[in-house]
Amino acid sequence: MTDLAAVLARLERDHARILAELVEFAAIPSVSTDPAHATDLRAAAAWVAAKLAAAGPFTVRIMPTPGASVVYAEWLAAPGAPTALIYGHYDVQPEDPVDKWHSPPFRPTLREGRLYGRGVSDDKGPLLIPIKVAAAFFAERGRLPLNLKFLIEGEEEIGSRHLEAFIAGHSDMLAADVVLSADGAIWRSDEPSVTVSNRGLAGLEMTLTGAAKDLHSGRHGGSVANPLHAIARLIASLHRPDGRVAVAGFYDTVRELSQPEQAEIAQLPFDERAYLAQVGAPLAVGEPGYSTLERQWTRPTIEVNGMWGGYQGAGTKTIVPSEAHAKITCRLVPDQDPDDVIALVTAHLETHVPPGTRLVVHPGDHGARPAHIARDHPVVKAAEAALEQVYGVRPLIVRMGGTVPMAEFFQRLMGLSTLYFSFSTGDEDFHAPNEFFRVHRLHEGLAAWAYLWDVFRRLGKR
Amino acid sequence: MTDLAAVLARLERDHARILAELVEFAAIPSVSTDPAHATDLRAAAAWVAAKLAAAGPFTVRIMPTPGASVVYAEWLAAPGAPTALIYGHYDVQPEDPVDKWHSPPFRPTLREGRLYGRGVSDDKGPLLIPIKVAAAFFAERGRLPLNLKFLIEGEEEIGSRHLEAFIAGHSDMLAADVVLSADGAIWRSDEPSVTVSNRGLAGLEMTLTGAAKDLHSGRHGGSVANPLHAIARLIASLHRPDGRVAVAGFYDTVRELSQPEQAEIAQLPFDERAYLAQVGAPLAVGEPGYSTLERQWTRPTIEVNGMWGGYQGAGTKTIVPSEAHAKITCRLVPDQDPDDVIALVTAHLETHVPPGTRLVVHPGDHGARPAHIARDHPVVKAAEAALEQVYGVRPLIVRMGGTVPMAEFFQRLMGLSTLYFSFSTGDEDFHAPNEFFRVHRLHEGLAAWAYLWDVFRRLGKR
Repeated sequence: MTDLAAVLARLERDHARILAELVEFAAIPSVSTDPAHATDLRAAAAWVAAKLAAAGPFTVRIMPTPGASVVYAEWLAAPGAPTALIYGHYDVQPEDPVDKWHSPPFRPTLREGRLYGRGVSDDKGPLLIPIKVAAAFFAERGRLPLNLKFLIEGEEEIGSRHLEAFIAGHSDMLAADVVLSADGAIWRSDEPSVTVSNRGLAGLEMTLTGAAKDLHSGRHGGSVANPLHAIARLIASLHRPDGRVAVAGFYDTVRELSQPEQAEIAQLPFDERAYLAQVGAPLAVGEPGYSTLERQWTRPTIEVNGMWGGYQGAGTKTIVPSEAHAKITCRLVPDQDPDDVIALVTAHLETHVPPGTRLVVHPGDHGARPAHIARDHPVVKAAEAALEQVYGVRPLIVRMGGTVPMAEFFQRLMGLSTLYFSFSTGDEDFHAPNEFFRVHRLHEGLAAWAYLWDVFRRLGKR
Repeated sequence: MTDLAAVLARLERDHARILAELVEFAAIPSVSTDPAHATDLRAAAAWVAAKLAAAGPFTVRIMPTPGASVVYAEWLAAPGAPTALIYGHYDVQPEDPVDKWHSPPFRPTLREGRLYGRGVSDDKGPLLIPIKVAAAFFAERGRLPLNLKFLIEGEEEIGSRHLEAFIAGHSDMLAADVVLSADGAIWRSDEPSVTVSNRGLAGLEMTLTGAAKDLHSGRHGGSVANPLHAIARLIASLHRPDGRVAVAGFYDTVRELSQPEQAEIAQLPFDERAYLAQVGAPLAVGEPGYSTLERQWTRPTIEVNGMWGGYQGAGTKTIVPSEAHAKITCRLVPDQDPDDVIALVTAHLETHVPPGTRLVVHPGDHGARPAHIARDHPVVKAAEAALEQVYGVRPLIVRMGGTVPMAEFFQRLMGLSTLYFSFSTGDEDFHAPNEFFRVHRLHEGLAAWAYLWDVFRRLGKR
């Protein structure tokens, strides 16, 4: 890594300038949820494209979608070296409620080592890092250590709604060995970690109907089915009293953790009492036989996200409601299939419908398969080495309970694994007022990405 | 009943004039739910007071309450005869949605034997009847067959919110042998009936809390209690799978029907298939061992009127919600006590709270005891005789599943039974657009009230 020293030194010299660029980037109010910000989204895309073009001899394209454009760039002049596809997004969450911000959301402000502003942590800061690292490599070496593609979208905060079609339609252009995601928060702010799996997702919505209209509970109560009683019974039937899912076949395709995987999770520093205090829960509740981290990362769930029916206003309204509703999502783990799980849950619901009510199930979209990257994948090894270089400690191997649409798209449509290599952390309020990005994480990220590419070039040789 | 013929003949001659008065009365938009109608409420109270004063030598008072005034009138010059307290209300439901009305809600319009207008059936038409019958008695005989008091309130449609205090504060003034209610719909439009009981009411609201805030179901799902799962389990525990209430002690004070009472209900004409088709329910569901009418009239219930928690909007929001809520009311039958029932249900909930959630129960107001009038009460006999005179058939003896606040107040505060003697029927859309009152029911009501007083004077002698 002799000449990496020069790259790292340059990055260090450029810290202030890079921070200034982030301030400029984050001043663009590229809120994707609000059509009024269409011009700002275009400005943010142009800003990213310009920075990529300035970084070095990338081929840069702003590619339209039915929504916000994708910024694409590539440099493929490293024959024999692996090709990484870098993912990030230039759109941000809305700034509401504005009056809760201590400084204007789109006037990024530095306070006590943190840059405050909408989008600085999610995802403009983390996304700027690999662009500036590429610029440093080009400046010092005239070339990158590996082939790079950038795919920077503008709709992540609205569910990446046109990304699936974009990937499906450009799989040749996007061909790579691995996806490196600049998005996706790291597990903890005080310990480096590498994320090797995330859960999948499958959802459905259901309606139970009793009588054709709300009935007066005095006149009719006790003689016709109350769909709220029925949905309570039906939802309760989804779990055994001990917390295990009671749907027949639900666990059939679940791959149990290996002994080493279990040990890896058991060895992680995790203070359950502190966690429960943080979320304000009185005790840990879940599937028997598994630890809290195992439940969050490696076990499938059926979760009711919303349930409602009847009168919700002030005081009393004495009705037997006509309808009851529930929104349900399942978190999936290898090797569960979203469609299969929805079919199993639907079959369970249909066979347990209480008398006097009628069930209609609306399955959600195609869902998302669980994603994982092999523990011995060269890019995982490279990430471990890079983080150890920067932090001086071996990073933790962790997992993610959530579901990331883009990772699922790349896996399903192109067979590509995703390595999350973000330097934002979950405590940076990125969907809330006073979003911030730790400036030292920006610095650490610059060095870490440089190491990552350097190590991955060697380990990931074709 | 020689000179009753003259009263009846006068009432018949006055049919058109009485209908014209009802048109005038119902043109006053005395909507009690909307403070903007305060002047209209005062106008309606004054209208009623004026009609009572015009009817004969009543002492008439408009008595303020913290809300709408009570119109009170009395004539007590029939020593030895029973005293009846007539109840009704001059306020009406809101007219919304106005655009669904075929004629303006406050311009009462006659079409095909029905008078359409807000309040004509509930309760202005039925309330006008005893006033005009009193007028006819005074005109023909110079006196009434019994002592009469009128209590006409202006807040029935907002829960009679000041009536309880009014009754408690004026129990001497209101002393009577029985309450005759001009309010309360008759069972069927095509068969005369006398209602001898109604169910009581007790309510509570509950909140189950898991974590202190909504949590992301990817990050946290499966490791902390989901209060929607918990409330489903808790609500399901209130009933056995067969439909019987599972709360310990719930049925302990329930008085089972006597054999003759059961037979009386069993003999009623009741087409269950037609009923189910009318309410749009696929089948009858309720406590095992009881018929639909028994379930509606004579059995207690626990009914969830509303339940909610988590996300209810379009699409998906993958959260483990922090809270789940339910509104519950119980219908009570003799000899259940509202406070006792709430205590039993609360104890059940508290002992069944699923792990990881915290329960808060908010009991409702004092509730309402079930009310009934003795089958052999003179006023019941009088009502049967009066209806048989008018309709030529013996009336059915029926019950009411609902709860009527004023009847409960009179029973609890003064020990007074209420006889419902209304001539509106439940199909007259009185809480919906195009409320109507059948004109022939107005005519039948006038005759029936005349008979009722005449017979009750003889049967109810002190």
